[in-house]
Amino acid sequence: MSRFLRKAFETLDVYVPGEQPRDKKYIKLNTNESPFPPSREVLDAVAAEAASLQLYSDPECTALRQTAAEQFGLQPENIFCGNGSDEVLNFAFMAFCDESKGMAFPAISYGFYPVFGDLYGLDCTAVPLCGNFTIDPADYFGLNKNIVIANPNAPTGLLLGIEQIRAILDNNRSNLVIIDEAYIDFGGKSCLPLIAEYDNLLVVQTFSKSRSLAGARLGFGFAQPEIIADLNRVKYSTNPYNINRETLAAGEAALRSQSYYDANCRTIMDNRDYTTEALRALGFEVLPSKANFIFARHSAIGGNELYLSLKEKGILVRHFSRPEISDFVRITIGTLAQMQTLVDAVRLILSQGGN
Amino acid sequence: MSRFLRKAFETLDVYVPGEQPRDKKYIKLNTNESPFPPSREVLDAVAAEAASLQLYSDPECTALRQTAAEQFGLQPENIFCGNGSDEVLNFAFMAFCDESKGMAFPAISYGFYPVFGDLYGLDCTAVPLCGNFTIDPADYFGLNKNIVIANPNAPTGLLLGIEQIRAILDNNRSNLVIIDEAYIDFGGKSCLPLIAEYDNLLVVQTFSKSRSLAGARLGFGFAQPEIIADLNRVKYSTNPYNINRETLAAGEAALRSQSYYDANCRTIMDNRDYTTEALRALGFEVLPSKANFIFARHSAIGGNELYLSLKEKGILVRHFSRPEISDFVRITIGTLAQMQTLVDAVRLILSQGGN
Repeated sequence: MSRFLRKAFETLDVYVPGEQPRDKKYIKLNTNESPFPPSREVLDAVAAEAASLQLYSDPECTALRQTAAEQFGLQPENIFCGNGSDEVLNFAFMAFCDESKGMAFPAISYGFYPVFGDLYGLDCTAVPLCGNFTIDPADYFGLNKNIVIANPNAPTGLLLGIEQIRAILDNNRSNLVIIDEAYIDFGGKSCLPLIAEYDNLLVVQTFSKSRSLAGARLGFGFAQPEIIADLNRVKYSTNPYNINRETLAAGEAALRSQSYYDANCRTIMDNRDYTTEALRALGFEVLPSKANFIFARHSAIGGNELYLSLKEKGILVRHFSRPEISDFVRITIGTLAQMQTLVDAVRLILSQGGN
Repeated sequence: MSRFLRKAFETLDVYVPGEQPRDKKYIKLNTNESPFPPSREVLDAVAAEAASLQLYSDPECTALRQTAAEQFGLQPENIFCGNGSDEVLNFAFMAFCDESKGMAFPAISYGFYPVFGDLYGLDCTAVPLCGNFTIDPADYFGLNKNIVIANPNAPTGLLLGIEQIRAILDNNRSNLVIIDEAYIDFGGKSCLPLIAEYDNLLVVQTFSKSRSLAGARLGFGFAQPEIIADLNRVKYSTNPYNINRETLAAGEAALRSQSYYDANCRTIMDNRDYTTEALRALGFEVLPSKANFIFARHSAIGGNELYLSLKEKGILVRHFSRPEISDFVRITIGTLAQMQTLVDAVRLILSQGGN
């Protein structure tokens, strides 16, 4: 910390990304990446774009927004492009929250929400989950705060239905409701169709998971044009060229390769079913996930112990230390071969009494 | 504007990027891009990296910072990587300014500085330039604010010497001094060596100009480790994966192609000399630029009129409407052929009485 840092930031709790160790080659099931590379069209588009990198990218992301509008059945004015969905969320916290309007979110959810709240000094409410780790929409009525909910939620993988989202929207007409659909393409139903009905809805999606572009950083915000204009106001006050040329090209090409990604998502859902069943057969409780990860615990071994034992065997999963969920591990769904290796390793660890 | 936008943002003056018209093909001399493509090594690195885009980028930018450290004679701990230098500047405004410490900058300079000030509600001081458009270091003593100065300044192209920077640093030991060296590689002398001496110095550079990567978005902050740690604190509270894989790869490859970029910079300086002399021969006042652009005016034609006449002829330059500089145009230095076309067009416009 320098002597120039503003006082308000001295005690910030920053976000801690999943580990990316370089000591050896791991089976990486800890950051919810896709096990599949981008489509051939994406590889070609990125390579072709390299020769134009001396020129600024289009700050309006015109071609990408047009292509996305066709794909999602919206207008370009409904679409904001961010340098990852984290940037879309960041801009939303900046644009719509202040000392008079804080943010409410599930107490167990994406770890970045309280980080944004802390950064901007907001009055935030962490709403406890129900006993079975689900979200009760009624808990989000009458809070007089903006709301952000991951759907499916992370790290639980549990999904809210459209009618539950609608109930939250109906009971928050004076608040912005952000539905973070980072994991929606693995069996969930998007609430994008609700945008036409609700001017208080902002849907956030990412190309990091289902579209194999975590390393390209591309996220979207979908809403009525006035909300999008507000996000652009922040963008044009911080970083107008937030999306670079490679990512614009990759995103467009990915949208044109939908069938490839649809097939990948189906494979991941099949592998999720396999892994869920295999772990349950070993005595695990596995929450019913609609995401590209599962959240699982076993009465015979603690979450941290399982995480460490798997890491020793060259498999990375994610463990969260907060008490309510410290007996769980979050396991990203990879290829079938990876998941079979995981299940074998877990079986071995359990047979050795958890070591 | 939506009904959810925070009140403080309703009157924001956002940054306006140089125009990127798509109605026809222009000779683009309006956004200070390089006329040269990235090096062969960059093209190859970007193409090769595409196959790994399903994996997150390294949030610590380890390899890029290591390579940059070797190139710049620093340690990795002295280096922060941003999604363009705009992001480095944004994070610096966030980290080091608040209600008790505002920012001072030249009244005529990079148009983004007051935008950041406006966004964060800071008490800013716009320090007038001297009559000949130079910066007087003494004007930055005793302001009790952080300071940001573009060196060379934009859009004037005028350079401060190291001893002048040192004077500003010596007289601001309680303030952070940011030297924005976006255009330093075109004949200026970087103040990077001062970092070891001054804990109140943050040097910002970009790969958008001399390294032909405007479309890849890569900027650097250089400072003592405590300042870098503060910038990381903001990064890890907003967007830990701010630099994507393509840009990490492009940046590393660019650093390994230094001789290619050095040669390009020499060519641009030669073309700058040619253009300066040719325009002066036509009666222009051309400020002595150390950047990849020149700032020029002519008594027989207004700045906006010249801009419009050139645009009609398929040549884009940049005009700023604020009164002190509205008689100037800023002309990016391109290839010799582009500059000859520009000079011919200007000659023709002048011969037609400015139309």
